Amino acid sequence: MIVLSKEEIAALAEPDEMMDVIEEAYRIFGAGAYFMPPRPVVEHENKTLMYMPCYTKNIIGTKILSIFPENSKLGLPSIDGVVLLNDYATGAPVAVLDGQAVTAWRTGAVGGVGIRHLSRKDCHTVGIVGAGVQGFYQAVYACAAREIHTVYVFNHSDRDLTDYLKRLKEAIADPKVEVVQCKKIEELVKASDIICTATPSAEPVLPDDRELLTGKCIIAIGSYTPQMREIPDAVWDLVDNVYIELPYACEESGDLSQPIAAGRLTQDRIVLMDQFLSSGADEEEITKKTTYFKSVGMGLFDVCVAQKLLEKAKER
Amino acid sequence: MIVLSKEEIAALAEPDEMMDVIEEAYRIFGAGAYFMPPRPVVEHENKTLMYMPCYTKNIIGTKILSIFPENSKLGLPSIDGVVLLNDYATGAPVAVLDGQAVTAWRTGAVGGVGIRHLSRKDCHTVGIVGAGVQGFYQAVYACAAREIHTVYVFNHSDRDLTDYLKRLKEAIADPKVEVVQCKKIEELVKASDIICTATPSAEPVLPDDRELLTGKCIIAIGSYTPQMREIPDAVWDLVDNVYIELPYACEESGDLSQPIAAGRLTQDRIVLMDQFLSSGADEEEITKKTTYFKSVGMGLFDVCVAQKLLEKAKER
Repeated sequence: MIVLSKEEIAALAEPDEMMDVIEEAYRIFGAGAYFMPPRPVVEHENKTLMYMPCYTKNIIGTKILSIFPENSKLGLPSIDGVVLLNDYATGAPVAVLDGQAVTAWRTGAVGGVGIRHLSRKDCHTVGIVGAGVQGFYQAVYACAAREIHTVYVFNHSDRDLTDYLKRLKEAIADPKVEVVQCKKIEELVKASDIICTATPSAEPVLPDDRELLTGKCIIAIGSYTPQMREIPDAVWDLVDNVYIELPYACEESGDLSQPIAAGRLTQDRIVLMDQFLSSGADEEEITKKTTYFKSVGMGLFDVCVAQKLLEKAKER
Repeated sequence: MIVLSKEEIAALAEPDEMMDVIEEAYRIFGAGAYFMPPRPVVEHENKTLMYMPCYTKNIIGTKILSIFPENSKLGLPSIDGVVLLNDYATGAPVAVLDGQAVTAWRTGAVGGVGIRHLSRKDCHTVGIVGAGVQGFYQAVYACAAREIHTVYVFNHSDRDLTDYLKRLKEAIADPKVEVVQCKKIEELVKASDIICTATPSAEPVLPDDRELLTGKCIIAIGSYTPQMREIPDAVWDLVDNVYIELPYACEESGDLSQPIAAGRLTQDRIVLMDQFLSSGADEEEITKKTTYFKSVGMGLFDVCVAQKLLEKAKER
């Protein structure tokens, strides 16, 4: 059995290749060539284990997450886990991968695919809202998807970002890319062609200001429960469509469920990403309008990314 | 994260210590100091994954089994898997262990504890019915639990057992122990003080003969579905009690569900092993009667055994 740690995954993962894997995963999704049953959850004394199985035609994967909200008191991430891969033909366990690393790289790649297809080719700036792990990888992938010269970072707390900005600068392949902290969210929005939100916020983190948000490509990664929300209502006046991975996102994410419930967003504007990718983009929309992609993730992405990492590990 | 392969587990596991771990697991079970929810199962195209979570007060474990019945066509075991251990306080994944090895060593240990407490101290022979992996470990543990001089092995097929007998002889710590094949089941029963059945049989594998079975200690490991059965009705006329791990066994195992449905065995004779171990044995029963222990296993055993193996791996 092959075991891949965080460090080994970081050495194997290449953003362009990972984005290609996500596009392939969308094709698998569109073709229905997978089996992704409901995710079993067990909970005891506020210690939750979630099993996320997904079968493709090549491999079977399970992401096993531990969700321990009290970890925040210890300064630890509340979600940890592994990805287990089983051979498709025999069921034999073939690999265990660090779950945090798979999640970070695949979520970055999912956002990166959004940028590939929903942003103008001449975008040169990206703004990261939320200086956490997911925001970090959104920045790395944005720089792979577009010729970025400046990454802006805004965080809602007063935390010192010196180390974060330094690590981010090192992680971005192109040494010419500048990494700059913004003290105000308005400053970030104004300066950024692409905006990635990756916060646990319960209230919109972007200003509710149509003028400021016009023409931006917005990639929203936070808001994975109905109570969480990052996106202000002004966005619904600016975008033609709302791009998502799964219909389920409209229930799971407050970014969508709240404006739908309030009548600010209608279901006919929701477009599944796999259909968008297979049918081709409307150039007018991408080049002139604000665009918005909301990711909640799915086990299929984890399994496809983990399988690719395993293949690469075997090649070495 | 620590990864323990079959070979590493074989090097770490000591039968006496593993039996002590199982006795401790029975105490945890008796005290209710664990959480063992129903086992989530997902299935697609006859490829099943089963997740077996169990929380103790020290650790959280999940045995993840792949159950692929078509593997038998390939000459592979139909059940494979891993045991994942998560830190009790933080949920961080701490170890992944080979699931076949954990299952084999813990099942051996569970049978061994049955032998420790349900057989006469002067038993010197053991008969293994079913020359498979589980039978192999039953023999190893029987030799640890009692001063065995001869292991008899009977298999219902014509398979050549030369290699199996050789490997078993090597695996038994005491080189003076003889390992002998029986061509007939009656021969094995007659010669053996202790009889361990470990077959996938749908019909009784022991002769339905009271005289032959009188005074034997019977450890039954197969029959983990209502359709499977190893034990003939004569046993119910000979034993005072039927020892099991979990009430659930009366539904899950045909060894129990079939005679209960037929009125040959009544619920008042069923005794839970943890209660038997904590209250002490009836010497008269153990020394003079036929005794019978039926194991179907439980996740708590896997977790306790895996935790002990992890502790031992850390000590090295």
